[in-house]
Formats: sequence, C-alpha cells, structure tokens
Amino acid sequence: MRNLTLLTDFYELTMMNGYLKCGTAERKAVFDVFYRGVGGFSYAVAAGLEQVVEYVENLHFSDDDIEYLRSLNQFGEDFLTALKNFKFTGDIKAIPEGTIVFPYEPLLTVTATLFESQLVETALLTFLNHQTLIATKALRLCESTKGQILEFGLRRAQNADAGIYGARAAYIGGCRQTSNVLAGKMFDIAVKGTHAHSWVMSFPDELTAFRKYAEIYPDGCLLLVDTYDTLKSGVPNAIKVFDELTAKGYRPLGIRLDSGDLAYLSKKARAMLDAAGYDYVKIFASGDIDEDVLLALQAQDAKIDIFGIGTRLITSYTNPSLGGVYKLAAMENEKGELDPKIKVSNTPAKITNPGLKKVVRIYDADNMAAADLICLEDDVFDESKPLTIFHPEQIWKKTTFEKYRIEELMVDVFKGGKLVYKLPSLAEIGKRLDEQAASFYPEYLRVVNTQEYKVDLSQRLYDLKHKLLLNKG
Amino acid sequence: MRNLTLLTDFYELTMMNGYLKCGTAERKAVFDVFYRGVGGFSYAVAAGLEQVVEYVENLHFSDDDIEYLRSLNQFGEDFLTALKNFKFTGDIKAIPEGTIVFPYEPLLTVTATLFESQLVETALLTFLNHQTLIATKALRLCESTKGQILEFGLRRAQNADAGIYGARAAYIGGCRQTSNVLAGKMFDIAVKGTHAHSWVMSFPDELTAFRKYAEIYPDGCLLLVDTYDTLKSGVPNAIKVFDELTAKGYRPLGIRLDSGDLAYLSKKARAMLDAAGYDYVKIFASGDIDEDVLLALQAQDAKIDIFGIGTRLITSYTNPSLGGVYKLAAMENEKGELDPKIKVSNTPAKITNPGLKKVVRIYDADNMAAADLICLEDDVFDESKPLTIFHPEQIWKKTTFEKYRIEELMVDVFKGGKLVYKLPSLAEIGKRLDEQAASFYPEYLRVVNTQEYKVDLSQRLYDLKHKLLLNKG
Repeated sequence: MRNLTLLTDFYELTMMNGYLKCGTAERKAVFDVFYRGVGGFSYAVAAGLEQVVEYVENLHFSDDDIEYLRSLNQFGEDFLTALKNFKFTGDIKAIPEGTIVFPYEPLLTVTATLFESQLVETALLTFLNHQTLIATKALRLCESTKGQILEFGLRRAQNADAGIYGARAAYIGGCRQTSNVLAGKMFDIAVKGTHAHSWVMSFPDELTAFRKYAEIYPDGCLLLVDTYDTLKSGVPNAIKVFDELTAKGYRPLGIRLDSGDLAYLSKKARAMLDAAGYDYVKIFASGDIDEDVLLALQAQDAKIDIFGIGTRLITSYTNPSLGGVYKLAAMENEKGELDPKIKVSNTPAKITNPGLKKVVRIYDADNMAAADLICLEDDVFDESKPLTIFHPEQIWKKTTFEKYRIEELMVDVFKGGKLVYKLPSLAEIGKRLDEQAASFYPEYLRVVNTQEYKVDLSQRLYDLKHKLLLNKG
Repeated sequence: MRNLTLLTDFYELTMMNGYLKCGTAERKAVFDVFYRGVGGFSYAVAAGLEQVVEYVENLHFSDDDIEYLRSLNQFGEDFLTALKNFKFTGDIKAIPEGTIVFPYEPLLTVTATLFESQLVETALLTFLNHQTLIATKALRLCESTKGQILEFGLRRAQNADAGIYGARAAYIGGCRQTSNVLAGKMFDIAVKGTHAHSWVMSFPDELTAFRKYAEIYPDGCLLLVDTYDTLKSGVPNAIKVFDELTAKGYRPLGIRLDSGDLAYLSKKARAMLDAAGYDYVKIFASGDIDEDVLLALQAQDAKIDIFGIGTRLITSYTNPSLGGVYKLAAMENEKGELDPKIKVSNTPAKITNPGLKKVVRIYDADNMAAADLICLEDDVFDESKPLTIFHPEQIWKKTTFEKYRIEELMVDVFKGGKLVYKLPSLAEIGKRLDEQAASFYPEYLRVVNTQEYKVDLSQRLYDLKHKLLLNKG
C-alpha cells in the first residue's frame, strides 16, 4: 500500500508543531466534514469512506518522511519524534457510503487530539470530496435517463486515482459498469469494452473488420458503426455480420454510435435493425453526454439502451469540485470539558454548526424521506409523540409529523483508533444507494428544478448556535 | 512502484486479443497523441512525459493481473501467455515537458506493434491529458497576474494523484510553490503553509493566537487575519505582533486574506501596514481565484503580492478536461511497408493528419516564435532560403519568412523499448517553460482574446492528406 501520510497541506504540520509547543496538542477536538452545496449539488451521494479507513489505518511517518521534514529546517527534533511515534487514536463516525446526503450535514466527524485531527484534515477531504462528487454526478446522470450507463472516462480522468476511485464512485452512484480494467480488478466491477475506430481502420474495409471481430467474439457481439458512414455503411455491414452470426446460432448484442446526431441516428438504426429482425439488438451511444443531453434524448424518443459516458462523468465536468470543508465544532478546554465552537461569517451560509452532532432522517407515514435534522449527539426523539421541525433561518416555517419514523444516519467507524465498522462490499453499497434513491420522492432527486429537501436543526442545536452567536456579537 | 499495467480500457485488451487472432498483432503501427482545443485552450503546456516514462518502463502483467483476466472468461491461454511475456519494445518520441504547444500538434508519437501500441493508449492519455491540463491552467493564471501563485488545492483535487501530479504540473506551468507536502517530497517543490482559522479558534482570542504563532515561527511570520474581522481586528492585531517581533529583531513576512472583497481589503490593509512602517510586508490572498478574478484585481489596483489558488487551479475548474486523443497515423501492410492512415469525419477539425510526423517551430528575425509547422518526419528545411507556409484550410492565406530559424520540437524518448532520453529535473522543466513563455509575443499567451498562433502543415503533409482524402471519397 502507498504511504500517503505526507498527503497533507504543509500548514497542518506547522499547526501541529505549534500545538505541541503550546501544550495543546493533546487537547481533544471535534471536526466535521460537510459541504455547502453553493453553486453545486443540492444533494449528494456519500462516498469515499473506505478510502478514508485505509488511509487512517495506514498512517505512519516513514524514516524518509521524517528525513524530508528535517531537511526543511523548520521543525525541531521534539516534533519529528512525535511524528515518528504518530498513531491515530481518535474516534471517527460517518454516514455510510451510498447514502443520499444534503448540504451542511456532517458526512464524517473526527474526535481526536488536536495533533491527530489536524493531520488528517487534507487527505480526508481529498478522498471524500472526490468520491462523493463522482457518485453524485453518477446518480444525477442516472436520474436523467431510463437507460443504463457505462463509465468509460479513464483517459480523461485527472490522473490514475481519479480514474480508479472515480469508477468506484460512479458504481456507487448507479453507473455499474466500467471500461477501467484496474478498477474492475480492484473493486470487482463488471468491465466492458469491444473495439475502437482503430480496429476498423486496421483492416482494408469495415465489413472485413466487423467479420473478424464477430469471428473472435461471436457471443455478445457489439459493433462500432460510425467509422465511415453510420447509416450507409456501418449499420448495413453490422446487419450482414449479424445475419452470419445468427446463421451459426449466435445472438448478437448490439451496435455502438459514437458521433453525429444520436437522436436521429439511433431512431434510423433502430428501424433498420428491427426491419432485419433484430429488435432485440441493443443500441449503445457515446459522445459528450451529460444530464441535459440525456433529458433531451429522452424527450426526442431516441432509441438508446445504454450510454457510455466518459469526460462528463469522470471529471463531473460542469461542477468539478464538491467543495467539502473540515470545520472545528468543539474543543477541550483547560478543565477537560468539550466547548462547542462556532465559526462566524458575514454570510449566514458560512456560519458553522457547533458541538458534537448527529444527523437523523425523518420518514413520513408512507415511509418516504421527508426531512433531515442536524442534532446534538445527545438529542433524543420519542416517535410516539408528534415532532415539529422548523427552518433554520426562516424559523416561522414549521412542519409537524404525527406518524413518522426516525433513522440515525451516522455510524461509528473508529473508536479509540480501532476500526469498529465492518466495511460493506461495493455491491452492498450499490444496493444501499438503490434503496436510498427509492426512499426519496423523485422531485428531490431530479436534475432540473430540484425541490429543496428540508434540512433543519434540532431545537437544542438551534439554541446552542444562537447562544454562541449572540455571545460573539 | 504501483503496478498500473491494468490501467487501461477493456477494449484495448479485446482488440489486442483480436489482433493476435488475426495475425496482425506484430504489425507496426504509429499513433499520435494530440488535442483539438475545441472549446478549451488555444495553447497548452506539455507535461506528463516523466509519468509516461515511468509507466512504460514498469509495464508488466503480474500473476494476479493474469489471474483476474482469466477469471473474466473472455480470453484464451494464448493471449494470457502473450500478456505474461509482454514488454514494450517500440519507439516513443515526444515534445519535452515545459514546451508550449498547440492544437493538432503530436505531443507524443508511439511507433510499436499494434499489440503494444494499443495497450498503452489509455494510460498515456490519462497522464498527458491531466498534467498538460493543469500545467496549462497554471500558465494561464500566471499570465493573468504580476503576482506569484502558490498551489494549494490538494483537498479539492480529484483524489490523491490529481493532487500530487497536479502540484507537479502547476509547478511546470509557473506556480512554483505548493502546500502539498507529499508533492514537495516527491518532486522537490518548495512547500508553504502557515495556519488555518482553526489555529485562531483554538485560542481564547485572536491576539493570543497570533502571539503564540509568532513565538513559534518568529522568522518569516505570516498571519491569517480574517477569522473575526479583517480590518477591525485581524490587521491591527497582526501589526501589534509585528511590532513585538521587530522589537526582537525579526522581520515579519506578511498577512493573508481569505475572504471578503480582496481588492478593497488589500488596499485598506496595505495602507494600514504602510502607516505602521511595514511597507515590506507582503499581502497574500486566497478564495476562489481564477483568471478573470486576477485580471479584475489587477485592474482595480489591488495590493496583493502572492495568491493562493486551490480548486480553480487543481481541477482546472472552468475546463476540467484537455480532451487529448490517440489516433492511428500509419500502419504496416502485408508487404512490411508503413501505410499512412487517415480518420475522415464530416467535421474538418476531426480529420487526422496521416503518416509519421514531426513538429517544427519557426522563429522570426527577432528570435520570437512565429508559427509551427506539422511536417512529415523526412521533411527537410533549408534555412538559407525563404520559407512560405499556408493555412491548412484557407490555403490562400500565406506567410513567407526570409530570415528565420527552425527548431524541431520532438525528441526521441524510447528506441526499441529502451529509454534514450535523459529526463530533466523539474527545475529544468520549469526553466524551459520560462524560456518558452519569453519566446512568444504576449498576445499569443494572454487569456482574453488570445491571438491565434499559426499551426500550418508542410506542403508534403498537406499533399499526402489530400491525396488520402480524395481516395476515400
């Protein structure tokens, strides 16, 4: 396993050294990871926790890490020794991967010494920001089509990890096939792929190229039909080869369109295939497909069964950063008590929620998700009594639930540095996302004019926040 | 070193297996990597070659790679044995890192068996696309300001490699400092960082936090002044602490602004610092800074010396994919001759340039870059005679150079599978970029209304291309 212990911002180290010097390094601190969703996604699919676990379990400064830090001439031996002995001994709780989450909800909370909690900030954000971003993009794409989606963006990914963990995150969000062989091997995702234009161009003509391909892969044969002319050459040649395959008892799988007007070409190709008796043959399409293209193709009744999506999915092209942050929520004082902390800002959306918290989801009488509540960790709910919640800024906006069910979203992951969470398989995470998506009314997940889902604060958290805000003022 | 041999699209493997079955696996093929620049960058900074070299040198299918591929039940033992014995034995030439390049120019050319050249397609594109993207973004940012730029986007990078190789690429493009410690260690980039808001919040008040920080880091002290109120609290407290430092003989470095109106705040803070005798103290600024913000701040005469740029740089936010492609340019026929190949498209911009090529840069009488010429590899130029070039589509547009100098841009990297290129250090690559940037008239590199730089075809390449196009028709 790669040693990613130095995968951190330098200021984490200067601050850790500072805390050591001030004698506060061992003070407990509570940090929350959350995203604000400003200009971005109104919902997200939590992902990246497995990578966080691997990182935390593997945290250690190697001899040459220490040697490198010594060479910077900024740190003394006391600090370097503390790093050499570094081990994560704190608690982490988090919302499991595959859960649909919303702005301001803590996706993960670290409770650890200031020394430890500061070191892990950067890498935790890197992993959670990236995988949550791509899982969310994948779900948004899936919500924009009735077809299936194959992830094939590796060549456009922002380097190897973005391709590998991006394929994993895309799986979580609902794109359950990938072209990325290494991701397939690492995470047991179904890998798919047939041939490129270069295959066709390496033969004297298209028909020969198709025939050769079908000879080698007679089972589930899929042909790329747009190298020369989709309707005049590609589809007729594919039908010829499909005829030869069916004569030998094989069942062809499909054709792939990779350029041109996908709505027009898919309808024409569908008609040609149907007329030749291939109504069961699938049409694959690819080429700069995004949410808006999927919706438009649906509106035009395009005949596409499976989409290959590369660049737009693997980079989350129209919104390539989730912008998750890691904010101090509480800190131990000299007396050993945990003081809630708040970060004030002129922009209300940037004021943080203080204290050690949890997130609960309220399901309505139809067992559908109706609202989330960010609470203090020791908040209790009595489901036998009505529950009234209110908007955290426009507090006159209230909702009362009579018949409802409460679910806590966060689970314990590390306790005292020990992993206490059984990591689910990727298939289980995918299943969780499917169940989650089914538990939301579609207006909350649709991509255009998304209905705002209620994320309120519990009365006690609201009161604490306002007490702290008034004291600061 | 990580084994990234399976970092490829599955169709590369199905095609390789196909070529093996057809008896064409050993035929030589020539593939070019280039980008089209559609909707994206009008120039780019070549980067990623070192990562390509490491990947190619390390290519090998491990036993469990083979086992995994066997488990897919799509390949026979002949193919798996061929993979087991796989070694890259081909040639690679490329434009060195730190070179300014343009659309359609081959950044890298692979000449190898079809079997080998197909395998490496995906990873080569991943590395070159990503690093070239970020190096280009970095240069664009540098071209938009007179200040220095510090890269600090790790937490918003699309996973670990994007942060690590992104910091390297940002260095190449001109952002020569990073917050990323691991990148600093791996590539010997200067690492920078001081403290976050959480440092200030972990003390009872801002002044104590600043004092403690200055006590620990008296040399080159830099204070983040926007945790509470920049002008009422942050800057005055910083000045107090600077006074204490200078009384002890230290020279403070600066203050950092991370929110609010940077133009307004920087001018006010500058005046306050100057009035207190700190005209030498630098002002750092950060917060969603992009090319347009840099230009606007310059226009407003903002007093910012150094910019910290995160998300917008490390994801190339407004254009997160370069879109480089890998296209067949020639292939060996049955007689062992290399046939030039062309990919035709209805869109002229998508028609490829056939044959084994090179790129030359023409410098004018002032030794400034005036035009590039994509040529056939055996094109020769006599600098003692005038050279007339013409636009590849609007062929009546001609330019003649009387006094000029020709420079070839591509260098041999691998010959017969052996590395023949001495990889330059990152500092040397950075120096190359600086020299390159100085060799272009500024109108070609500016970000707004960039002047189109001439990239023409040599007469012989133009003739070959049109002969092939007419034959296809």
